[in-house]
Amino acid sequence: MTEHFDEAVFRDRTDRVQDALRAADADLAVLFPSSNLDYVSGFDEEPAERHLFLLLGRTGDPVFVVPDLYETQVRHESWVADVRAYGDGEDPMRVVAGVLDDLGVDSGSAPRVLVDDSMWATFTQDLRDVLPGASWGLASEALEPVRVRKDDAELAALRRAGAVADDVSEWVRARGEDVVGMTESDLAGELERELRERGASGPAFPVIVGSGPNGAMPHHTHGDRVIERGDPVVLDFGGFVDGYPGDQTRTVVFAGDPPDEFERVHEVVRDAQQAGVEAVEPGVEAGAVDAAARAVIEAAGYGDAFFHRTGHGVGLDVHEPPYVVDGNDRELEPGMVCSIEPGVYLEDRFGVRIEDLVVVTEDGCERLNDSPRGWRAE
Amino acid sequence: MTEHFDEAVFRDRTDRVQDALRAADADLAVLFPSSNLDYVSGFDEEPAERHLFLLLGRTGDPVFVVPDLYETQVRHESWVADVRAYGDGEDPMRVVAGVLDDLGVDSGSAPRVLVDDSMWATFTQDLRDVLPGASWGLASEALEPVRVRKDDAELAALRRAGAVADDVSEWVRARGEDVVGMTESDLAGELERELRERGASGPAFPVIVGSGPNGAMPHHTHGDRVIERGDPVVLDFGGFVDGYPGDQTRTVVFAGDPPDEFERVHEVVRDAQQAGVEAVEPGVEAGAVDAAARAVIEAAGYGDAFFHRTGHGVGLDVHEPPYVVDGNDRELEPGMVCSIEPGVYLEDRFGVRIEDLVVVTEDGCERLNDSPRGWRAE
Repeated sequence: MTEHFDEAVFRDRTDRVQDALRAADADLAVLFPSSNLDYVSGFDEEPAERHLFLLLGRTGDPVFVVPDLYETQVRHESWVADVRAYGDGEDPMRVVAGVLDDLGVDSGSAPRVLVDDSMWATFTQDLRDVLPGASWGLASEALEPVRVRKDDAELAALRRAGAVADDVSEWVRARGEDVVGMTESDLAGELERELRERGASGPAFPVIVGSGPNGAMPHHTHGDRVIERGDPVVLDFGGFVDGYPGDQTRTVVFAGDPPDEFERVHEVVRDAQQAGVEAVEPGVEAGAVDAAARAVIEAAGYGDAFFHRTGHGVGLDVHEPPYVVDGNDRELEPGMVCSIEPGVYLEDRFGVRIEDLVVVTEDGCERLNDSPRGWRAE
Repeated sequence: MTEHFDEAVFRDRTDRVQDALRAADADLAVLFPSSNLDYVSGFDEEPAERHLFLLLGRTGDPVFVVPDLYETQVRHESWVADVRAYGDGEDPMRVVAGVLDDLGVDSGSAPRVLVDDSMWATFTQDLRDVLPGASWGLASEALEPVRVRKDDAELAALRRAGAVADDVSEWVRARGEDVVGMTESDLAGELERELRERGASGPAFPVIVGSGPNGAMPHHTHGDRVIERGDPVVLDFGGFVDGYPGDQTRTVVFAGDPPDEFERVHEVVRDAQQAGVEAVEPGVEAGAVDAAARAVIEAAGYGDAFFHRTGHGVGLDVHEPPYVVDGNDRELEPGMVCSIEPGVYLEDRFGVRIEDLVVVTEDGCERLNDSPRGWRAE
């Protein structure tokens, strides 16, 4: 899952994060297995119940505190040289205290400490115990402004991930009538397999196959329901390529005639998606992109049936800033990547969602997905 | 992924957790997408960037606060009737404040609040902001004593998950020489597929295929390395069945002659695993089980090469109490389930690990895995 970039890439990122730490008037960032830690160190792991931190002061190199059994892996996967391991019987917070000493961070100086946004409560409480005099913030204060603009290596990975998702989208569409009679879960399994066969290390998020009424639940993943003739099927999937995700959605009828009102709803959503994409350019507020897509759906009388935001940023995290949501006054900048994915959900009947990723360019945007967007399978 | 139990099961769990809240002198538990939330509510989701909480006071029914787009799903999957949804443009902490009012929890009364152990820092900081007068603890104080002893429905699911993992273990072993020339990742993909085909909803954790020197990194998952003749391959996998995981490990040589010292190491690990299993019975400290397995490896001169604990509890979480680790004086009780998985890791050469799950019975334990433990594929 890890991207394989040169040490120079990580050193440059570390420098920029340390600049941001100083700008945030913070003394220390404590990261935890997360995309923030991956971004700085190259080490990509799931959170787990053992203490595993990367501590980054205002200057100098970062320091890892890791369980013994991760030490070899961390040294293989990360450029960070200072890796301090503890055994299962030892107190990891004593090791952390040693690092704090080395970095000159102590409670007496009332440091400002940024903890990883997704750090578990069990670990933040331990940190509060060893630094009772600290004030606390979130690591995103320093990481987010750096991560939100993708560099060339990141964009290249995102383009590859988009191409893989498009390939699988075209593959499943071509299956047509053969899909009728399959369960959602069987089809989801095939989509995962195809993502891998085309070069993804695995799905970037649980594959969504929302058939018929299940399509009206935007976060339904997949289940035992059998896909029938005439079912609209919401297909939302993507795979990780070099650590970066694909994420696109198409709504397809594999065979037979769709239900009443479906064709109209599909056209409205497709128009809304197009309007959203056309609104993306540097200097435009993210909220204005949401408004552009939403206006089309509201004008068609389906405003209440589009009850989520239009999109989200995409990078090492599948969901990250900038959020394309009403009220977000953040201005888009070149290098930002986000999804444009309006939907209309008619409870107990069907749902329609169409999604592409776009990268903001100097004068507009570039879609990272280009597979067919129509509803007919063939 | 969700287990499908009756509402009565969840009401009974809720009652027992509320008893434990009172015993912990706590006023409120705030859960977050996690196995704790799943255990109480039946709703199984991954953590995500939107606020999604289950609030449980000392008495009365729990209350969900969820993003709009999860509302239908929560109502479908959970028995909890009080579900308060907010839109993307609304402030979720205002909804939380309303629930706190209804539950009679306010800062003025200096409440003690238990937050989910894995709740993200971004959410615990928001809770601290709305309850500045509270004192804080972790939800495991109330949940863990209830969850650690599995009820009959849970044990039945764990047995089914064990049987599925065993089936796949026997299947891969029977492939023998055909595995030579595959990459670890290809084999991992096949193991995932087989888990699903035999009834798992998906892998319970990233499948580990550690071939040759990669087997010496206990948390290496899988990569592009091609499996060669004579490679010892550490195979650690299991799937979710009715929400509960399988987890077993075998170390197999698919073809050819293993490296020097391998046969001896494998025998030592197998003996250590047997010694660990034999040590399990009610009243025995978890640390004593670790010691029993470790003594075998130390006596053979490989103590330094066994640098992780002997095992972990297994339930809705793949890793949960009781931890089978040096110094853990927790006494085993009937209904506890844990792994026994000693290993020896010779850096840059190979690793060996053998793992079964066991359930503590009235007078010993029962293994949940029974596939062959030898190293020869056939």
